[in-house]
Amino acid sequence: MADQSAKPTRIGLAGLAVMGQNLALNIAEKGFPISVYNRTTSKVDETIERAKVEGNLPVFGFHDPESFVRSIQKPRVIIMLVKAGSPVDQTIKTLSAYMEKGDCIIDGGNEWYENTERREKAAAELGLLYLGMGVSGGEEGARNGPSLMPGGSHEAYKYIEDIALKVAAQVPDSGPCVTYIGKGGSGNFVKMIHNGIEYGDMQLIAEAYDVLKSVGKLSNEELKNVFTEWNNGELQSFLVEITADIFGIKDDKTDGYLVDKVLDKTGMKGTGKWTVQQAAELSVAAPTIEASLDSRFLSGLKEERTEAAKVFKSGGLNDIIGDRVVDKEKLIDDVRRALYASKICSYAQGMNLIRAKSVEKGWGLKLGELARIWKGGCIIRAIFLDRIKQAYDRNSDLANLLVDPEFAKEIIDRQSAWRRVVCLAINSGVSTPGMSASLAYFDTYRRERLPANLVQAQRDYFGAHTYERVDMSGAYHTEWFKLAKNI
Amino acid sequence: MADQSAKPTRIGLAGLAVMGQNLALNIAEKGFPISVYNRTTSKVDETIERAKVEGNLPVFGFHDPESFVRSIQKPRVIIMLVKAGSPVDQTIKTLSAYMEKGDCIIDGGNEWYENTERREKAAAELGLLYLGMGVSGGEEGARNGPSLMPGGSHEAYKYIEDIALKVAAQVPDSGPCVTYIGKGGSGNFVKMIHNGIEYGDMQLIAEAYDVLKSVGKLSNEELKNVFTEWNNGELQSFLVEITADIFGIKDDKTDGYLVDKVLDKTGMKGTGKWTVQQAAELSVAAPTIEASLDSRFLSGLKEERTEAAKVFKSGGLNDIIGDRVVDKEKLIDDVRRALYASKICSYAQGMNLIRAKSVEKGWGLKLGELARIWKGGCIIRAIFLDRIKQAYDRNSDLANLLVDPEFAKEIIDRQSAWRRVVCLAINSGVSTPGMSASLAYFDTYRRERLPANLVQAQRDYFGAHTYERVDMSGAYHTEWFKLAKNI
Repeated sequence: MADQSAKPTRIGLAGLAVMGQNLALNIAEKGFPISVYNRTTSKVDETIERAKVEGNLPVFGFHDPESFVRSIQKPRVIIMLVKAGSPVDQTIKTLSAYMEKGDCIIDGGNEWYENTERREKAAAELGLLYLGMGVSGGEEGARNGPSLMPGGSHEAYKYIEDIALKVAAQVPDSGPCVTYIGKGGSGNFVKMIHNGIEYGDMQLIAEAYDVLKSVGKLSNEELKNVFTEWNNGELQSFLVEITADIFGIKDDKTDGYLVDKVLDKTGMKGTGKWTVQQAAELSVAAPTIEASLDSRFLSGLKEERTEAAKVFKSGGLNDIIGDRVVDKEKLIDDVRRALYASKICSYAQGMNLIRAKSVEKGWGLKLGELARIWKGGCIIRAIFLDRIKQAYDRNSDLANLLVDPEFAKEIIDRQSAWRRVVCLAINSGVSTPGMSASLAYFDTYRRERLPANLVQAQRDYFGAHTYERVDMSGAYHTEWFKLAKNI
Repeated sequence: MADQSAKPTRIGLAGLAVMGQNLALNIAEKGFPISVYNRTTSKVDETIERAKVEGNLPVFGFHDPESFVRSIQKPRVIIMLVKAGSPVDQTIKTLSAYMEKGDCIIDGGNEWYENTERREKAAAELGLLYLGMGVSGGEEGARNGPSLMPGGSHEAYKYIEDIALKVAAQVPDSGPCVTYIGKGGSGNFVKMIHNGIEYGDMQLIAEAYDVLKSVGKLSNEELKNVFTEWNNGELQSFLVEITADIFGIKDDKTDGYLVDKVLDKTGMKGTGKWTVQQAAELSVAAPTIEASLDSRFLSGLKEERTEAAKVFKSGGLNDIIGDRVVDKEKLIDDVRRALYASKICSYAQGMNLIRAKSVEKGWGLKLGELARIWKGGCIIRAIFLDRIKQAYDRNSDLANLLVDPEFAKEIIDRQSAWRRVVCLAINSGVSTPGMSASLAYFDTYRRERLPANLVQAQRDYFGAHTYERVDMSGAYHTEWFKLAKNI
């Protein structure tokens, strides 16, 4: 191609699927000449064509890795946007052959954080710097301003800080949606939890939809109006906004609304699974996020569900739905409150997951700063994140978002509605696994005395695992069996 | 020591903590002369002493690994009962130095199944056979008849089958609680899921206790009577029996009942965590087991919970409990039904986890046979397991226990009570995470149409992940944003 002027470009990007193309165009648009490369070369030409059409942007395409690498100014910085796993290893191998000491590789994909840590070490042996940078915001965010979560070499971050600050989403009063996250795989880890929280948000919204539609009998038009209205208040967020949009779209193939024609099977790509596995590993309760993942699993069993529905229809169970008279306005208001209160629980879980990992790894992550960079660009962007940031500003050692004075007050104001909605759903045979799990999380966390004493007594009974006492220190063991049977 | 007659023993056992001692005595008592060894030699002497006291049992102790190994008849079989992880590797190393081709090592601990598969391969390179054998029943089961879950080399299982059949718990009409589970790490995997189910059972019982005590205001004496009565019916099980026992035991240090003095912090040893992580890995919903694990995590945050209780007390939340009038008899009956229905859901999850893994690994596990060997000896032993066995006898391809005709009927009979209990708990501010999660699992699984269509539409909106349609095959993508904004 050699379409380039003599002057080297500022940065390179390899991997030109839509996310990669869009991020490259975004970088170029912010005034940074960029070299681009893709193994399938037609994608390079496609990107160059888009760069022309979208404003003669300074994007320079290369069909071979060597000239691509050599076209970039030293120390070179190359962002990869390829599929997580072995494609990343392959791309590193291809590019690093032409890179020199002090150059830097950035992985912008949803990579498992330990892979990033392994690669950072391997890169260091070649004298290269490495960053794992979570990029959220989907295709649109990549083009117009994503939320960026770079972790790894701080020196490498400094190379690209000027670019990152301009490319990231800009939020009035709180700045660009990027910050240096921390060492090692922290950028990927934080992005993973972001996605887990996203699973939770989507599930909670789906449950709100289900209750309003199945119990409240709202039409799509009414649902569109409800979500539009919600997007003007405390629930204002990207996901609520697009939900309102979705309800308004007519099907172009048959009559009716498109949302009703979409099959109720939800796909997934792995970050939600990792979040749940990490929660178990870190001994952090994350029931809302787990409920979201389980709901996706169960949604996939469409054929089994159809059969089960038949089995239980004959038992009269499906008749539960439908015969109750509900006050629509009251229901809408209650569901809004239930959704908001559940959301607080879900974010409390996500934030505590990040803190637990940060402590384990010594990353020193700042939770309030993470809330700040999620305020724009990313999928979970919401006015709500500002409240989280404020909570950590008030107290950076906050044990749980639930006990922040402001959030506590909001929950107290909403708890009656929350309980009403979950019970209404239960009595209507409609499942609200995310809202129920959130409520149980709240009611467990705020309880001084749990029935865990019984579980611990059982463990000591059959396994001699010992127990502590409420009134004396030390570990105790009782011969429960002998005492019970008078042996 | 050389206390042994010239005749070699039938089998050896290494690792003489209480479980190991008890299993050795059990084996000897069934007529199999056994050699025993422990690195800390005082444990060897302790075991020999117990063998004398408990009936002059044919147990032969050794203070060095070489004479221990050489004392066993060929092909030699040695059971290890040491801590999972590196102690197992260390013990294998020590013993295998003296073992010969065709000899067999059995790990009786709660080992991660992949470790067993790794060791089986390593053992094969030395010409040794290997089994990973789950042993359930705690100390008492090991001594008097455990449930045994041996997996790995079938040839090795044949060496010990005569012993296993006699040592295992014996259940009238269904035989000894042992069967050859399958290849590789299947024995450990099945034991791990058994433990996950055990977590679920214990949590559900704890929630029943909490509702009866906190909402129903039952005394420990009343609770003892309730659980004793329950143990005569459909809930008859080891865990319900010991729960009744626990409520009857007085504190010997101060006034009152011991259960009230036990601190409400539950310990754990890892198999529950693994179960939850495997559920995510296998894309199987396991919300009841997850709720049990999360409840243990939250129980551990005693200090945080005490603080949170203060925060929400001022908000009037704790006052929710206590002012309602309940019909005790009705409540007890409802809670029994809710517990039973929740238990069905929990076992459905556990069984489906086993099947998913069996399919992945090609183990060919027989779910009904697993229910059979859990009927005695182990911690989850219960009359209920007979119903599960019958369900798989009726249909070995049953998609989910919930849709077995008998279980479906039982659920239909109990669903009103189940919904009443969960809603009562919610309105009393008492959390029942396990029962709620079970109910949500049921209401999700039996639902033909879930709100997952909205989630999939959202994913297509922001990530172009595509969706399927209810009325046409194929994958579709819609430009939701452009349509919504009329671009």
